[in-house]
Parts: sequence; structure tokens; C-alpha cells
Amino acid sequence: MKMTKPQPSKSGPVPEIYARRESAVRSYARAMPRQFTRAEGVWMHDSAGGRYLDFLSGCSTLNYGHNHPVLKQALLDYIAADGITHGLDLHTDAKADFLDALESLILRPRGLEYRAMFTGPTGTNAVEAAIKLARKVTGRELIIAFSNGFHGMTLGALACTGNAQKRGGAGVPLSHVSHEPYDGYHGPDVDTAALLEQRLSDPSSGLDAPAAFIVETVQGEGGLNAASAEWLRRIAEIAKQHGALLIIDDIQAGCGRTGGFFSFEESGVKPDIVTLAKSLSGMGLPFALTLFRPELDIWSPGEHNGTFRGNNHAFVTAAATLRHFWANPEFVEGVRERSDLLEHRLARIAARHGLSTRGRGMMRGIDMGSGENASAVTTACFDRGLIIETSGPHDEIVKVLAPLTIDTDVFEAGLDILETAVGDVLSQSYGVAAE
Amino acid sequence: MKMTKPQPSKSGPVPEIYARRESAVRSYARAMPRQFTRAEGVWMHDSAGGRYLDFLSGCSTLNYGHNHPVLKQALLDYIAADGITHGLDLHTDAKADFLDALESLILRPRGLEYRAMFTGPTGTNAVEAAIKLARKVTGRELIIAFSNGFHGMTLGALACTGNAQKRGGAGVPLSHVSHEPYDGYHGPDVDTAALLEQRLSDPSSGLDAPAAFIVETVQGEGGLNAASAEWLRRIAEIAKQHGALLIIDDIQAGCGRTGGFFSFEESGVKPDIVTLAKSLSGMGLPFALTLFRPELDIWSPGEHNGTFRGNNHAFVTAAATLRHFWANPEFVEGVRERSDLLEHRLARIAARHGLSTRGRGMMRGIDMGSGENASAVTTACFDRGLIIETSGPHDEIVKVLAPLTIDTDVFEAGLDILETAVGDVLSQSYGVAAE
Amino acid sequence: MKMTKPQPSKSGPVPEIYARRESAVRSYARAMPRQFTRAEGVWMHDSAGGRYLDFLSGCSTLNYGHNHPVLKQALLDYIAADGITHGLDLHTDAKADFLDALESLILRPRGLEYRAMFTGPTGTNAVEAAIKLARKVTGRELIIAFSNGFHGMTLGALACTGNAQKRGGAGVPLSHVSHEPYDGYHGPDVDTAALLEQRLSDPSSGLDAPAAFIVETVQGEGGLNAASAEWLRRIAEIAKQHGALLIIDDIQAGCGRTGGFFSFEESGVKPDIVTLAKSLSGMGLPFALTLFRPELDIWSPGEHNGTFRGNNHAFVTAAATLRHFWANPEFVEGVRERSDLLEHRLARIAARHGLSTRGRGMMRGIDMGSGENASAVTTACFDRGLIIETSGPHDEIVKVLAPLTIDTDVFEAGLDILETAVGDVLSQSYGVAAE
Amino acid sequence: MKMTKPQPSKSGPVPEIYARRESAVRSYARAMPRQFTRAEGVWMHDSAGGRYLDFLSGCSTLNYGHNHPVLKQALLDYIAADGITHGLDLHTDAKADFLDALESLILRPRGLEYRAMFTGPTGTNAVEAAIKLARKVTGRELIIAFSNGFHGMTLGALACTGNAQKRGGAGVPLSHVSHEPYDGYHGPDVDTAALLEQRLSDPSSGLDAPAAFIVETVQGEGGLNAASAEWLRRIAEIAKQHGALLIIDDIQAGCGRTGGFFSFEESGVKPDIVTLAKSLSGMGLPFALTLFRPELDIWSPGEHNGTFRGNNHAFVTAAATLRHFWANPEFVEGVRERSDLLEHRLARIAARHGLSTRGRGMMRGIDMGSGENASAVTTACFDRGLIIETSGPHDEIVKVLAPLTIDTDVFEAGLDILETAVGDVLSQSYGVAAE
Repeated sequence: MKMTKPQPSKSGPVPEIYARRESAVRSYARAMPRQFTRAEGVWMHDSAGGRYLDFLSGCSTLNYGHNHPVLKQALLDYIAADGITHGLDLHTDAKADFLDALESLILRPRGLEYRAMFTGPTGTNAVEAAIKLARKVTGRELIIAFSNGFHGMTLGALACTGNAQKRGGAGVPLSHVSHEPYDGYHGPDVDTAALLEQRLSDPSSGLDAPAAFIVETVQGEGGLNAASAEWLRRIAEIAKQHGALLIIDDIQAGCGRTGGFFSFEESGVKPDIVTLAKSLSGMGLPFALTLFRPELDIWSPGEHNGTFRGNNHAFVTAAATLRHFWANPEFVEGVRERSDLLEHRLARIAARHGLSTRGRGMMRGIDMGSGENASAVTTACFDRGLIIETSGPHDEIVKVLAPLTIDTDVFEAGLDILETAVGDVLSQSYGVAAE
Repeated sequence: MKMTKPQPSKSGPVPEIYARRESAVRSYARAMPRQFTRAEGVWMHDSAGGRYLDFLSGCSTLNYGHNHPVLKQALLDYIAADGITHGLDLHTDAKADFLDALESLILRPRGLEYRAMFTGPTGTNAVEAAIKLARKVTGRELIIAFSNGFHGMTLGALACTGNAQKRGGAGVPLSHVSHEPYDGYHGPDVDTAALLEQRLSDPSSGLDAPAAFIVETVQGEGGLNAASAEWLRRIAEIAKQHGALLIIDDIQAGCGRTGGFFSFEESGVKPDIVTLAKSLSGMGLPFALTLFRPELDIWSPGEHNGTFRGNNHAFVTAAATLRHFWANPEFVEGVRERSDLLEHRLARIAARHGLSTRGRGMMRGIDMGSGENASAVTTACFDRGLIIETSGPHDEIVKVLAPLTIDTDVFEAGLDILETAVGDVLSQSYGVAAE
Repeated sequence: MKMTKPQPSKSGPVPEIYARRESAVRSYARAMPRQFTRAEGVWMHDSAGGRYLDFLSGCSTLNYGHNHPVLKQALLDYIAADGITHGLDLHTDAKADFLDALESLILRPRGLEYRAMFTGPTGTNAVEAAIKLARKVTGRELIIAFSNGFHGMTLGALACTGNAQKRGGAGVPLSHVSHEPYDGYHGPDVDTAALLEQRLSDPSSGLDAPAAFIVETVQGEGGLNAASAEWLRRIAEIAKQHGALLIIDDIQAGCGRTGGFFSFEESGVKPDIVTLAKSLSGMGLPFALTLFRPELDIWSPGEHNGTFRGNNHAFVTAAATLRHFWANPEFVEGVRERSDLLEHRLARIAARHGLSTRGRGMMRGIDMGSGENASAVTTACFDRGLIIETSGPHDEIVKVLAPLTIDTDVFEAGLDILETAVGDVLSQSYGVAAE
Repeated sequence: MKMTKPQPSKSGPVPEIYARRESAVRSYARAMPRQFTRAEGVWMHDSAGGRYLDFLSGCSTLNYGHNHPVLKQALLDYIAADGITHGLDLHTDAKADFLDALESLILRPRGLEYRAMFTGPTGTNAVEAAIKLARKVTGRELIIAFSNGFHGMTLGALACTGNAQKRGGAGVPLSHVSHEPYDGYHGPDVDTAALLEQRLSDPSSGLDAPAAFIVETVQGEGGLNAASAEWLRRIAEIAKQHGALLIIDDIQAGCGRTGGFFSFEESGVKPDIVTLAKSLSGMGLPFALTLFRPELDIWSPGEHNGTFRGNNHAFVTAAATLRHFWANPEFVEGVRERSDLLEHRLARIAARHGLSTRGRGMMRGIDMGSGENASAVTTACFDRGLIIETSGPHDEIVKVLAPLTIDTDVFEAGLDILETAVGDVLSQSYGVAAE
């Protein structure tokens, strides 16, 4: 019989080794104090026998669920046959196969002639490569990033990130980046693209000529703010007019999370540079990619490198995702249907409680008004076996990042838990407020 | 019958997809134009049926050879059982098991009470975390790095890296780091530790008070320069006197490459912070670790994070390396013996041709006097089926980074090829010079 | 008979030494190729016997005209008596006398308890001292400056300056400053103070916590944009709420140019730090001053110094200005009357030609719509003996910076020249446009 | 009757206004709590009738003594005739006259074809202009400065300054400068030029390609360290080989302090850029100058400017110094004689007490071994009416900066006071040590 409902354990025995040996920097483990042992599809299992429905999906790293059988089998076969696991940037059949699939199934159908750069296999490495390249190509230093943007934790990417707590970890001033208001940042009446254009066109604004704009179409960490297609086109145009490259950081919103393989497809924008990571391998293996127009490929050999820049296991599973999911129109249609369901369900919850929703595609959330409320909701969900997390400048957005492949009935079951939790939290807080 | 000799293919059919779609930044693939398909132990196989002996070992990422059967089986079992592949920083049994092994087999026996921080799984991420933490703890900005040091490609780590080509890729000035002469940099008569101490003790030297020193005990990319134990102790003492933390970047020299698990063991130095990556997973999977004294663990939750900060596949194979190799005194003894063999063979080659050797343990090389000569040697080796590369400011050092587990007869066979290649190259160049 | 009209020379013999020996960086001398020899009040005389009416006043450095007899005599007496000319920061009777006058005639009547810091005698030095102090007091790095702001040419002050040509001279990226839109920058419908407040209040905007705001009440170089009193009060309040100091750079707008001694008096704002220079000595002698609340005076002795930090000649003439002009209510009233006259005359010119005016007090200009038009106007004026210059991002503002003490009939005569020149230039350009 | 001996007042009435209104940043005034009223030649007079012999000379700003009658008269005449006091960078007869004298009396006789840039009239402004120009010309960012160098307090110049207290005032990290060991810094056995050359020639040293070297031939603030002519020539050669410009900061050592007009004359080095200030006006008036080879004059008009960039009063007195002193061989000879006297007297004091001397020309000092001893000596001198100060990283050098024009008998009288003070201090401290 198919599982549709989670069965959380009361509490998990969590080994003492974590407190003794793992750095205090760990975060998600604090809110979900279980020891997980096994996962498949939308389900995670803990060491006490509990079963959890995963609406976090590794922050959009597991768009196809945990350990998808097709990807898993491809990887097992590769390992069993002693496929190359590590080969620096040497040619391997796994890499060639991935590039073939990328070209034929993703790039060509979309009219994109990108070159692929395999950076170190984390999103922040892909971003660092992107901004280095933009600076190298243009001979300029400044990057225009946007409010609430999140681009990574290494020094170059962190400078592009808006979050003050993350920035505070740098220990040095973060330079060569200007953070401009994102679409809608100053409310519906202020056209933030126009503000930016005015400053860039003014030789006395103090804003230097930029090497690049770096932008997310939907801000995964920054609160699920979704830029309009019109705004994205304006930003692309402004970048072009001012000699800046357009980098779309598609690490969280790409790989189908908003519907298309790239999140910018429906806007018609063709970025100069694109960064991908998270769900690229499909199975959660470390993998990152920086794509760019071939004319920009002015790297000298090894000018940007890294030990793990070719993760062959990830090539294998990534190629399998492209063939299994992206070559299949039903998959794309299915994501659209689930996305509509999610939009509908969240709108209903929001309407009932006078809240607002955020996001686009399968990357949506609900604004709980405060981090306290949002945290109460995610705790209430976890107690019922639903893994879900918050986002936004004050962690005030409860975000739903369910696998794109989730069955409708399971999806509904999870959203039922969320709906109940929101109701419980708000009635309690009203109760508190009324006293 | 056991293979002891390589059988290179004449040339490999290399798919056109690379030229069409992979960035020009690729490097090793240029010198070794083959498509590799399979590897085990010290051997790599190409698509044309060729067999190559690997003395590059993923730049010290494959200290136990390719796809070691023990590690491979552990990983296959874990995947087959639907073990957690990706779980952000949630607790998993794989992580607990790795931490247990790290504590009991590595840290406790060496009297080290480090906390472990799982950074994004690349060396540069581990370095970025280390320097952030040092700046945060001390409230200072400056990092002291050393000539010929290599620490990574993201902006913070790149600032610590000496290589001008790599630095040139930044596109912005690299700040907050001072590069000081490494041990022996100015020849045997200049005590570089004393030079540094004088400047740090002088309130008018212009050298600001540093947050940390970051140093490799043997400089893998910088030319296999090995610091003396005495110099390392001096540097550790100077750091302490001046309120700076000592970071040992053990990404290339650690995990047994110089004999002990940590490369600093024989010096007696106990660093404040240690970075590990490369051979940590044992199988070449992306994995990085920043270790530090528990008193330094002042991170707030999530202050430095990253999507792939817990690579569970790597936890599995890393734990297996600790149990299979590091719990076994015969392994350590075997490395020592191979290291002696390597030292002896390189010394013989050097003596014959009036060259000098570099390095320590299983991380040694021979100074060919010029990048041209060194490149000619590695090409001559590759033509005979030996994969080997260069290092150093002018790529003038041919470096031997054979697996630590290599059989003696195979090791000798590979060194025979190297010896022949050196002789051939030098006789030719003498020949050229004589004309 | 009193002179009221200029008598320019046809052209001036300009010695060849300038072309041979003075750097190409010289600027005003290019548009006014005369050799000047003598000046008194509003008049400058050239070596060919020409007489020019000065509506530039050393960019507001000569608010009391050239070589005012009272100041001149005070200086002659001091020099003749062998008064201290240079004494580093030693106490001198000239310095004590200036401080007494400053305290009794300026600070106390305005309820300001500032300490005076004698920086190197240029405006940029005063600004550097101000921003250093703000960073030292707050422990923060970021300075908020404003679009079109001008604060000086040394590296710290230049980073606060908006003009792209000036910034381009730095040769290094200008860091630690964010340039925000000034009052009215985005048109009458966008409240730029509100935009700034939103970003500072948002922990994810990417705008770091600032050490200080630095602002001009009227932007002398940036186009004579005048902030409203309301906006200044809002900015002061926002600074306070966010733990930032408010620096008013009163170098060009202060010393009576807008009416009061300080340009911020009528807004009621009491800045934490004020910079003064230009007309402070009254006679055009190099002199600069950084004033700040006594609680901020955490400098250690000599922590910021400079050879010429006490210019005793300037102390003498500055004290004389305070006693002769600022102790005299008629002077203040006279400035108000001339300011009204200026406002009226410029409004009339603007109305006639469909132009707009800018500025406040005796610091006003007319927007000619383009740098070409503005330059044609100033050239036409100079040909008639009126020295006048442009300002603004495109040099499109013709600015009137007449001495505050100018006689009404002379003032009118100068404005007549300006009016004629504007008419001539526009009719010509209409002519051109009509063809 | 000629004065040869000082007559200090017991203590000076110092007005309370200083404590109430002058910033705590004041420094010299603390050690010499008198109010000075009048000065001529080598003598300063206080408000209580005391008379002091000045061996500080405004830190080498008063090389011709206070208010030299020739300079004073020239200035009085100019002011009385309503000469232009302030004219931005307009041509004036005073400027032309100064440029003529500079060309004919200084530049041409020395074979130097420099262009003159009139920066803001402080040394730090001249340095900022110099490093900006070097960066602009070379397209590089890094400046090589030297240990114990002092170049000014604004952000660009401060980054070139070695002193930690001064640097600490910046409040932001000081970037784009590397501080290298000066001549003799590491003792007589370490060739610091060779150390630098090795690092610049090594593409992996981590030292980026520099825009310029900035160096003082004698370090006025840094402890009167004098570079050898041989070292200066080596540094000039290394700069040239590596495409860097050589800036000699001659602000303190120039204008005759070491004998020649420029301090680098006897080394034969011809710098690309020279900065001058301090004694340039001769009378202590604010004045600074950046000189450079005409090929480097790529400034666009106004790209670096400043309100007081033409101080006409200083032009007048500066031209007078060139004509009165530098056109006169007896003056130069006289400086040489006094320099020999100073060298001889300091050597005698040093020999008697086992101390060492420092410096060159009329810029010499004695190393008292500690800041405490040096401070005791200067206090003891001031009590006897001799104004003299310290220098060096620990303020351990008592420096003699007497006017170049001082009469021999007065010079001897001052040195007698110094000799006595040194003896007194050391006998006391021996006494203390013996207890």
C-alpha cells in the first residue's frame, strides 16, 4: 500500500558525537533533531523508525526526490564497472555523455550556444567563476547585485549576497559590489529598474560602470520574491546598454523548479552567463556549472581550477536526469500541474488568514508576517512529520520546495499538514494577542 | 598475471564535444588527449584500450588509488540501501560514523581536540571558512600567506595564493593578505622566519597585525618546497606571540601524503585550524573539512553554509579509509618504505644529471631547471603510458604523486620510465646546446 | 568714480612657461587664458590691463571678495610683527584668538559645542579626518554619500565623490562607500530618504551598517541641487536611528554662502561632524577645519596630523572675518537681500527661456540643458569680462558664486551680462535647431 | 648684541580655550605648553617673554628659519599691492615667476625636465597625486612602500605609511600597498634590494606587479634612516626593470635638508615622480608640488584638483628662496659646513655614551635606545630653551632639524644643550639601573 502520510518518531536518539565534534555552525540539524538513515522519493526515515515527508528537498537540490531509482541504478552501474570517479579535468566518457545530453536536450532546443565550465562542485564556486569571468571580459570591477540576493559564502560570492548575518561572517569589508533594489522592493509604485537606469546613465551618481549584473529570477533564500518577466527584460536591456554582462544565478530556481529547465525561459531573456548547481546532478551529488556565451570564453588553461571540478558520479546522474525527465514532455507538464495545485492551495491558506503568498512554479511560500510565526509553523509541521523550512530577511516566509515529481495525493497530504499548522499557529497567536 | 607496465594507446579518439562545449579553461586534458573510461588502483584505461600508470593521483586526491575495492564496496552498499545522499547538514548515520572514526582513529591518538566544520566540499571552501573564522575570532583582517602558496580559486583563498596567473583571474585587487617568503625562499643563508618576526615586532614596519598565518608544510602546487620542522615550529611560535592563529592548509600534503595523517605531525606543531580535502574521502569524492580548536568555534548557526556541506557518500568512503588504512600500522609502515624508495630513486636520477630534488614523503619531485625541460619529461612519460605532471612557479618541477598503496614493483616500473625520460630529455637538450 | 562694469582685455599674453612646465591637469586657466596680476573686491585685473568681474569667487572661497582691506591689513600687521607663520600644532596667540572668536561668535550663539580639529589646510583633508573619526567612533567602515556629491580628491574623500571623471583618476577601486540618491534625485514623486531608510532597516538589503552619512546641503560641484530642510531632518534622523554619524560637508555651502554661517542652520539639524574650508580664512588662504561633538573626540595625540595643520596667517584673517562680518547683523541682512535679488533675476531669465533654476542663498544657477549651452554662456560672459563657471554632472549648470559683499549695482551689471549671454546663446541654438 | 642662548620662561600661561575647543589630536603642544607669539630666524618667543632656540623647524618646514626677512618682505610687498591671493589654477604673475625660477635655477641645472603639478598645498595631497598618476600611467594598483616610511594621513598616502598608530586611525583596511624592508632594515648582512628583486621576479611570490615604488632617501619620521646611494640606485633599477615608476617623496628631505635641493642628487638617481612640500615656500606657508617626467603627464584637465591648488603667497616666497638661496653657491657651501659640524658633534656625543647616530646632511639624530630616554632628553632640552623632538618607530631617536641657515655659534650653543641633556638623562638612568 502506498504511503501518503508521514509517521514521525516522538524524538530521535541523536548521538553525542555531534555536540562534541561538529562545529556550532550546523543549522538545520538543530530544528530537526533526528538521525536520518535512509530516504527514497519524498520520504526520509530516521533511526527510530520515523518517516518524514520532505518539502525542503535539500533547498531545491532534490527536485526529483531522494535516490530516484533511475539515477541510483545508473550510478550503481557506473561504480560497479570501475568508471572514473576522479580525474581532475581529464576527458571521461561520463563527461562526454553529459555534455552531449546537455547540448542536445537543453541548449540546442532553447537556442543557447553556451560553453560549459566545470567549476568546483558547489554553487559558490560557480558564482565565483562567473564574476571573475565578467570582470576579466569587461575590465571592470563592480558587480551589481540585488537586495535579498543570495549567491554563496566564499568571499567573492558573499560580497554579492545581501544577508547581513552571512556578510558579517566575512571579517573583512565586502567590496566591488553594489546592492540595488530588486523588482518590487520599494513597493508596486516604484520602478526599481528605472531607478537603476537613472543612476547608471548619470556620470555623477557615484555608481561605477559595472562588469555584470547578477540576479536570481526567484530569490530562494531571500524570501521567494519573483521578478516579473518585464523587469527581467528591462534589467537585461540596461545591462547591455551599459556594457555589463547579465549573470543569471539559476542555482536554486533552475533545473525545473519554476517549470522550465532554466528559470528565465519564459521571460525570453538570454543571459550572458548562467550558474547552475543544486539539482543539476539530480541525486544531490555535488556538481556546479557555469555556462556562458562562447565569445566570452577567454579563460587561459587552468586560470580558474579546482580539484573536484569534474565530479564524474554527478556527470552520470545528471545525464540520466536530462534523458529521463527533460526529454519527456509529460514530466514538464506534470510540474506545471503540481505548480498550479501549489499556487491554488497556498492562495487558499493565505486568503483564509489574510496572508500573502510569494514565488513562482514549484517554488512558493507564504508570508507569516514574522519569523516567530513562521518558525512556529515549521515546528508544528515537523511535529507532524513534515520537513519544511523558512526563508526571507526575517525568516518570515514558510517555503514549499517539494520534489517536482511528487504524487498529487502525497502533495495534498503535505499541504494539509501545512494548512493545519498555519491555522493552529495563528489561532494561538490571536489567542495570545487577545489576552 | 599482474600488470606492472603501462600499455598506452597510440592516440585516443577524443569526442568533438569538448572543443564545442567545454570551456577553454580545461588544462590537464590538453596534455593527455585521451578519453578515459575506467580505473582501478594505479591504472587508468582509455577508450582505445590503452592502460596508463597514474603518478598524478588527482593531484594527491587518490592516495589510495582509483576505486579501491574496500571503499567502492562500502559506497555500493550504502547507495543500494538508499542511504541518505543529500541532507544539507542534517544528522545522518553516515556523518556520525565518520565523526566517530575521525575522533577515535585520528584526533584522540594525536592529542587533538578539534571540532569539525563541513564546508562546501572543495578545498577552497575549507580555506575560505578557515580565514573567515580567523578574522572573526581575532577581529583582524590581514592574513599572512607565503610565497608559492596555493590555497584555492575563490576570492578569499585566491588572495592567499601566490601564483600570478591564478591571481590575474580575479579581476579585482586581492587584498587583506601579505605574502611572505617561505622557508628557504631566499636561500640557505636567510632566515625567513626571522625576517617576518622582525617586521611583526616593529610598530612601524607597515605590516599590520595579522589574524592568521596560512601555510602548507609542503607546497604541492608551488614546487614541492618542504618547510623544515624547525621553521614550522618558529612560525607557530611567532603566530602565537603576535596573537595570530596558525592555519595549516593540509589539503594536498595531508591524508598520508607525507607519511602521517597530518603533514605537521612530525614537527610537533599543533595548528589552531587545519584544512583538509583532496584524499579525505579516499575515493576522489568531493569532500572538505575545516578543523579547529573548540575554543575557536564561535560560529553562529548557518553563518557559513553551503548546499553540499554534508556529502554523505564521502562520509561513507572517508570512514572506510580511516578504518581500513589508518587503523592499520602496516599501512603507515608501507608508506614510509615507499617514501624511502622514492627518495632514493629521485636522488639517483638527480645525482646522475646534476639536478636537485624537492619534497618530503610520497610528495617529491625533481627540478628540471626549466618548464620546457619538465614539460618534455612529462610528455615523454605519457608517451610511455605514465601519467605525471609538473609544479612550481615555472612548472619546472616534475612531481611524483603516486598512490600511497602502490606495489613496489609497479612503483619501480614507473620510476624507470621517469628515469629514462629524464635522460632522454637532457641528452637531447645537451645535444641541442652542443650544436 | 566707482567701477560697475568690467573691461576685459582682448586677449592676454600668456607666458609660454605654463605649456612647458605646468601639468596638463590645469583646468580653469584653459577657459580664461589671461595672466592675472591683481585683485580687490569683486575685480580681477590681468597683465594686459583688463578688468574682470568675478562671479566664480574661487568656487566660494572668496565670499568676502578679493583682498578685503580689513583682512589684508590684519595680515600685513601680523607678518610685519613677525607673528608665527608656521608652528605645527603649537599654541600661538593667533590660534587662541581664532578659537575665541569661533566659540563666542559662531558656536555659542548657535548652541553648538563643537571641538575644532585643524587638519591639513585643504577641504579634502578635513573630509578625510571626518570619515576617519566616524569610522573610529563607530567601528564600522561604510560611509553613505550621495549622488552628485563632491568631497575631495584624496583617496578617502574621492571614494565619497560621485563624479566619474574624478573617480576614474583613482586607479584603484573606490571602496567602503555607498552612493545613495540625493533629495529629488529621482524626481518629485520618489522620496529618496524613504528608499534609504527601507534599505538600512532591512537586514538583507546588502547595505552594510554605516559609520556615517556625508552630505552637502547644496551640492556646489554636483549642480547646485539644494536639499530641502525636511529631507535634511529626515536624513539626520535616519542616521541617528541606525547608529551612524551625520557629517555635513559645509566646505562650499558654509561660511555664509547660503545665508547663515553654517548652511544647515535653517533646517535645525545639528550634525555630529562638520567640515569647513574654502571661505573660512576669508582671504583665500589655505585653511580647513573639522568640527565635532566633544564626545566624539577620541583621537589619540597625533593620530591624524599634517605639517600645515595650523596655518597661522589663516587664523588671523579668519578671526577678522568673524569679528568684522559675522558679529555684524547688517552683513547677514545684506546677504539675504542680495540672495533675493539673485533669485529674482535668475527666475526671470529662466522664465523667459523655459529654463529652470537651482540652488539656495547666494549659491544659485541656471540649468542650460546641456554642457554645450552652458559652456557657450560662460564663454560669452568671459568675452564681456564676467568670470563665471559651470557645474553639474554634464557641466550644464551656469553657477553664480558672486562675493556675498558685492554692491547691488555691480551685481546687477554682472547679471545683465549673464542675461544677455543666455539670450544670445539660446537664440543662436534655436537658430541652429530651426534650420 | 647677538643672542646665542635661549631664555625659556618658567612656564607659560596657556589659555583655557585649547582644552575647551581644540581636539585631543593635538600633539606637539602637549610637550611644549607655551603660547608662542613671535618668531624670527632660529628663535621663537612666548607670551611670557621666553625665548627658544628652534631645532625642530616645523619638522623641516623652516629650512631658512622663521620669517626670513627677504621672504617676509617679498610677501608684504605682494599683499600690499593686492596681488592675487586666491585664483584656483588661473594663471598669475606669481605662478609664472615661480615656474620660471624653478625651471632656470633648479630643474635645468640638474638636467631634469619635470612638469609641475600644483596639488592641494599639503604633502599628503602631493603624495596622493603621485600615486594616482603612477596607477593611471601603468594600469596597475600596487604601490611598493618601505618599512618606517611616512607619506601622509589621507587614505591613499596613509596606506603607504608604516606607522601602526597612524594606520590604526584609518578605520578601514589599508590596501593596494606592500611595505618592503628599507635599506639596512634587516641589518648589514641582508641585502633588502635583493630580497625585493627576487620576489618581483618570481611569478609565484604573491607580490603583484607594482605601479610604483615610493621611497624617502632619509626617513624623517621613521627614525632618520638614510638609504645608501648604492641602494637607491638598485631600487631605481629594479623599479625600471619591473615596469614600475620611482616616486621619491622628498617632502622632508628635500629643499636642501640633506645638502642638495633634491635629496637624491648625489645618488645620481632621476626619479619618475618627485613630491615636495614643507620647506618649498621657505616661510612655512602651505605649498606642495608633484613633479614628473613630461611623458607621464596624461592627466585630463581637472582630473585631480583642489580649491587651494595654487597658493600664490607661497609662489612669491618660494620664488624668493630659489633666487636668494639656491642661486647662491655660498648658501650651499654653508649648509655643507653646518652639516659637517652636526655630524661631528653628534658623533662625539654618541661615542661618549656608546650610542649610535643616524641620518645625513642637516637631518641627523642620535639613537637614545628607548622612547623614554629620548623623551627625557627632549624635555630636558626644552627646560633649557631648546625646541627639539623625537622620531622613529619607538620615538627613540632625538632628531636635530635646525635651520640650514643657523649661525655656527648659535648652532654650537644648541648642541651644547643637547649634549648636556643626553649626559644628564643617561647618568640618571644609569643611576636608576644601578639601584
